[in-house]
Amino acid sequence: MIDYQNILHTIYKSTGSETDRRTVAKYIPELAKINVHKFGIHLIDNEKRSFSEGDSDEVFSIQSISKVLSLTMVLGLVGEDLWKRVEVEPSGDPFNHLSLLEQENGIPRNPLINAGAIVVADILVSQLDNPKQDFLKFIRDIANDQGINFDSKVAKSEKETGFRNFAAANLLKSCGNLKNDVDVVLDFYFHQCSIQMNCSQLAKTFFLFSNRGKCIRDQSYLNINRVKRINALMLTCGFYDEAGEFAFEVGLPGKSGVGGGIVALLPNTFCVATWSPGLNKKGNSKLGMQALKNLTSDTGLSIF
Amino acid sequence: MIDYQNILHTIYKSTGSETDRRTVAKYIPELAKINVHKFGIHLIDNEKRSFSEGDSDEVFSIQSISKVLSLTMVLGLVGEDLWKRVEVEPSGDPFNHLSLLEQENGIPRNPLINAGAIVVADILVSQLDNPKQDFLKFIRDIANDQGINFDSKVAKSEKETGFRNFAAANLLKSCGNLKNDVDVVLDFYFHQCSIQMNCSQLAKTFFLFSNRGKCIRDQSYLNINRVKRINALMLTCGFYDEAGEFAFEVGLPGKSGVGGGIVALLPNTFCVATWSPGLNKKGNSKLGMQALKNLTSDTGLSIF
Amino acid sequence: MIDYQNILHTIYKSTGSETDRRTVAKYIPELAKINVHKFGIHLIDNEKRSFSEGDSDEVFSIQSISKVLSLTMVLGLVGEDLWKRVEVEPSGDPFNHLSLLEQENGIPRNPLINAGAIVVADILVSQLDNPKQDFLKFIRDIANDQGINFDSKVAKSEKETGFRNFAAANLLKSCGNLKNDVDVVLDFYFHQCSIQMNCSQLAKTFFLFSNRGKCIRDQSYLNINRVKRINALMLTCGFYDEAGEFAFEVGLPGKSGVGGGIVALLPNTFCVATWSPGLNKKGNSKLGMQALKNLTSDTGLSIF
Amino acid sequence: MIDYQNILHTIYKSTGSETDRRTVAKYIPELAKINVHKFGIHLIDNEKRSFSEGDSDEVFSIQSISKVLSLTMVLGLVGEDLWKRVEVEPSGDPFNHLSLLEQENGIPRNPLINAGAIVVADILVSQLDNPKQDFLKFIRDIANDQGINFDSKVAKSEKETGFRNFAAANLLKSCGNLKNDVDVVLDFYFHQCSIQMNCSQLAKTFFLFSNRGKCIRDQSYLNINRVKRINALMLTCGFYDEAGEFAFEVGLPGKSGVGGGIVALLPNTFCVATWSPGLNKKGNSKLGMQALKNLTSDTGLSIF
Repeated sequence: MIDYQNILHTIYKSTGSETDRRTVAKYIPELAKINVHKFGIHLIDNEKRSFSEGDSDEVFSIQSISKVLSLTMVLGLVGEDLWKRVEVEPSGDPFNHLSLLEQENGIPRNPLINAGAIVVADILVSQLDNPKQDFLKFIRDIANDQGINFDSKVAKSEKETGFRNFAAANLLKSCGNLKNDVDVVLDFYFHQCSIQMNCSQLAKTFFLFSNRGKCIRDQSYLNINRVKRINALMLTCGFYDEAGEFAFEVGLPGKSGVGGGIVALLPNTFCVATWSPGLNKKGNSKLGMQALKNLTSDTGLSIF
Repeated sequence: MIDYQNILHTIYKSTGSETDRRTVAKYIPELAKINVHKFGIHLIDNEKRSFSEGDSDEVFSIQSISKVLSLTMVLGLVGEDLWKRVEVEPSGDPFNHLSLLEQENGIPRNPLINAGAIVVADILVSQLDNPKQDFLKFIRDIANDQGINFDSKVAKSEKETGFRNFAAANLLKSCGNLKNDVDVVLDFYFHQCSIQMNCSQLAKTFFLFSNRGKCIRDQSYLNINRVKRINALMLTCGFYDEAGEFAFEVGLPGKSGVGGGIVALLPNTFCVATWSPGLNKKGNSKLGMQALKNLTSDTGLSIF
Repeated sequence: MIDYQNILHTIYKSTGSETDRRTVAKYIPELAKINVHKFGIHLIDNEKRSFSEGDSDEVFSIQSISKVLSLTMVLGLVGEDLWKRVEVEPSGDPFNHLSLLEQENGIPRNPLINAGAIVVADILVSQLDNPKQDFLKFIRDIANDQGINFDSKVAKSEKETGFRNFAAANLLKSCGNLKNDVDVVLDFYFHQCSIQMNCSQLAKTFFLFSNRGKCIRDQSYLNINRVKRINALMLTCGFYDEAGEFAFEVGLPGKSGVGGGIVALLPNTFCVATWSPGLNKKGNSKLGMQALKNLTSDTGLSIF
Repeated sequence: MIDYQNILHTIYKSTGSETDRRTVAKYIPELAKINVHKFGIHLIDNEKRSFSEGDSDEVFSIQSISKVLSLTMVLGLVGEDLWKRVEVEPSGDPFNHLSLLEQENGIPRNPLINAGAIVVADILVSQLDNPKQDFLKFIRDIANDQGINFDSKVAKSEKETGFRNFAAANLLKSCGNLKNDVDVVLDFYFHQCSIQMNCSQLAKTFFLFSNRGKCIRDQSYLNINRVKRINALMLTCGFYDEAGEFAFEVGLPGKSGVGGGIVALLPNTFCVATWSPGLNKKGNSKLGMQALKNLTSDTGLSIF
């Protein structure tokens, strides 16, 4: 049996001693205030045993990580119809580029880039009675934790400064791939991204993707086919323009957010969440990437 | 002396008999209602003699033609500082593409594409006390016609459907090249584009560009250097992705609008306006292009 | 224990009954002559048991599948230095686009697109005494089959018509990322692509990627880290602009070629090769894609 | 009457005193050897009076300026059929970008970018018995100067290093827009670009574009319609990615080459050639641009 606690401890010590942590995301003013020295890690194995190191109980903004959860919810609501409005191909472009979207007539490359997640948000706004509350309840239930919440300050901050998302949403609207008002969809989207979790909550939430669709409470949220497909999407598209690098160096499906969180998983084995707010130049947590690289090389575990 | 009346008559007869007039711009609902069979032409020579044919007294929405007028006004207010925020190169792209704008960090290629004109509008909003009224007064004075007005229905229609302009403005904002609120700038921009003129008013307004900067009332609005530069911009950038074709086939500086208007001029000789709302696939008036082509081949006049 | 023979038989029957097989690759004249009705499949499991259906003993041109083998050889020769000259990111573009290459100053997106494979070929030409013979020997040894050979007619056919590869190689050369003469590198590259195998040989050759780096003769060619990385590259970049779709629908690392071959594998479990020369519009074998989709859904096996 | 000699003298003194002359084109080894301090100017007015300053009798490589001459010759041979294989729109891209060419299926944006000029060269190769000799004779006749010649060293130098032109030609070939062998077409193209002229010869050669199609010997080479169209093309496309700037600042049709030459003209008035081998970062002669700017501002002459 693998001694995860010992492995996490070693990783925490070696990775955490890194002094160059790059800088915190600046383009969302509220996120720019975070202490760059935070670093936490939490792993839950498929026997539901938990292992932690560092600041694993401190909440942070999960940001783009939420896109996997909105995708999960939307598949339950509309199923394969989703794929008429968004593709499943890697984008080969940084996370905020509009060029491809324009060239491809408003069909986003995949649901894990901003434009694709905005289309997913649009469908949720159409499908749900109380989109924000219903989505929050969905996540709380998966995580089995009613304490999870939006950070309304962060949502407001993005609303005031997220001009590139407004550009993307308007471009989608001009192409006929956004049904609701831009402001309504983005209000939902900014709230979705503002959800706060700590590493422990994040690992518990994504546990279902390593557990054949069953959440921590053993309730089934996805059939195995959809689990596999979402894992495939995370692997090919989960890290902006660094997805290939992550697959190549780490070899696990995962998703990062500009808040500095990363979650990754090995099917039928474990789910792990890291948090360190300093981002590399491609927008992924520098220490988180390093920690996960060490995890798969130390354990010899990966999907490949 | 050239018999302009006879030439216009011949052009009107031959061009006007064209039955395939393409279709009216559809993307602004109010413009989609216009009768595709309208066709007018008005020429004013540098002795201020006027010549008309067809529906030259019926007003239409000048749309993008207004960009030359806002450029003229902004140059009077901030001078060469403008060129820190917008370039003077042809775009090599259809009129609404955001790709180049994104690649070039929010500095629009020239002030006659939408993104460039939105930057010009932003400066006018910053510089003017009552932007809409002051701009309207500026145009009325140049044209010596106090009857010129906005069409508030058209402005409202664009506001409700101009998602691609909202996308461009938000992209500019995200790049730091828009100082005022997106909504405020676009409200001004949509009003500017909604200005209504007939061919006679349009030719009179642009008379100054063929008259070394002096308007129809002999008042000087631009020094000769700026006149030359604006004419150069019209020649290289005045017809969306068909600027080369227009220079090649017609050989005059000019500007078109999706309302079906075109204005063109030969320095020190004449200024001519046409209106026919059927657009070719590049967004320029089909009959207007044809009429101007005939005008320069029949008269043997062009800048080249 | 999984009854692979029965599964293959079922897949062969259901997939092979498909009448719309799309068309054979036309752009290489020699390949255009292949009979579109051919269809074979061969699977070898990690106990080295083999299972076949259909035309699994007929040779075909492996084409782009050879890129994985040249990558394997070059890693053994220059190691991680390779990554100074080629990236590991999905390209988000069809297999022959030069645009990204130009934008990114001649550093190809990954070694499995044409431009990247040409850089790999350039290094082999520099490193090997007799590049073509040495490469062929390398493959024969891995496959444990001295009957594997180039198809010189196909190589010649590509040399005469592969203008886009000449364009890519010259662009690389202009960027300083090709050390040898364009003609010499492409002569090697076209021979590499012309290698002929049948499904059985192909499965045996790629067996090492499912067997932790050890070939069919139990000789180790790659350490486990490199095996994982090559598998990751196949998953994210192995299917031109359909890599996401393949990961999403099939969930196995693999590589396709325009000759109609596909090879895919599940680490520690099996390696499978299919051949059907009719290509879908993204350039991948239509029946091969379908057969592998059925294989993972019927067996419930995938890396996710 | 304008005192051109005095104006040229003033321009030569003020412009020539500029110490920062940028650097000579490096990418063609033979051109890199030229002395950056050379500076000459020659103007011929429409009464065939000539005015010179500086190194106006020293020959240099006309390079891209030759594209206007091959265009002139090809129009005489195939007429408007040319426009099936090349467009007339500004490219909005630096002179050597392949991206647009690829997006637009091998139809170059205009005949004055490299790809367009290579298509023109291909037609000349098809049409002429002895392409190189016939082309040279054509130019010698226009210039009325049998001393004009190729510089075979420069042609050879480009052949050995012009990888980007080989890339463009192969891309054109792959799109079906090149009929002859790449090597044959580029051999012609590199010779065409290597033609040597001094400022005086260059001004005399282009005199016909300011003289309604009649050359210095009063022989007619082009009808007035074609003269106008070529002048329009020079204005909109003659200066790589700085065509707008040149139209805006200078206001004359013209063409530059990386050898440091520029030729420009005012219809019915004059033709002027400058040479200074130091290029600005857009690839145009720094001092030449400055001298022509001064010329039109000092004389008050421009097409606008």
